[in-house]
Amino acid sequence: MEESIFTKIINETIPSHKIFEDDRTFAFLDIHPVQPGHTLVVPKRQINRLEELTAEDYRALMNTVRLVMHRVVAVLGQEYRACLKAEGFDVPHAHVHVIPCRTAADFWAKQRLDTEPDHEQLVAMARQLAF
Amino acid sequence: MEESIFTKIINETIPSHKIFEDDRTFAFLDIHPVQPGHTLVVPKRQINRLEELTAEDYRALMNTVRLVMHRVVAVLGQEYRACLKAEGFDVPHAHVHVIPCRTAADFWAKQRLDTEPDHEQLVAMARQLAF
Repeated sequence: MEESIFTKIINETIPSHKIFEDDRTFAFLDIHPVQPGHTLVVPKRQINRLEELTAEDYRALMNTVRLVMHRVVAVLGQEYRACLKAEGFDVPHAHVHVIPCRTAADFWAKQRLDTEPDHEQLVAMARQLAF
Repeated sequence: MEESIFTKIINETIPSHKIFEDDRTFAFLDIHPVQPGHTLVVPKRQINRLEELTAEDYRALMNTVRLVMHRVVAVLGQEYRACLKAEGFDVPHAHVHVIPCRTAADFWAKQRLDTEPDHEQLVAMARQLAF
């Protein structure tokens, strides 16, 4: 199986703005955030679809999602709500987006994949959010 | 605290197309499905935000989400992927959408809240999906 971009990030072949890591999961900033603090949570085991994860990997993933949700609200403030999205048609490695939003429109804002990542801003955000 | 529409559904004050129920969670069809089989999973305890659930309620909720994900793919077919969405700006009672999608566009399709629910279709779908 070809290594996914997330596996390369987990193995540090590709650098990332890491927030959290444990035995089974890895969380890092999306470099094209829909909102500041937009984080991706992935299982270390490279599995295509969320529903194909083992019960243990799924539970670990959703536990990390919960930690990140608490973290973004604690750091960014109570006016933010930690929203979730998981569709997975882009990368064949299961992942959950945690998106801090103040309004429904924040959630539905289009992801701008055509822009250069603002790594300075991402570094500053990762420093705030990292566990 | 005023009873949310989901609490009324759980208490059967308002009827619903139920799929699954256990001690802590309840799953039923969204009457305005983005895609056929679109299901809402809610904690029985009325808590506004997903991140405010106790660890136990959150774990139970995400476990039911997993059961429903497996169920929709098993019933609708492997061309479907079980996608998730949780933003919660509409109803002050935490909930996760499970949306069966064949493409990313399926996921992003706009929810038509202005149309009359097609209860005949919903009854047929609930019969297929119910545990």
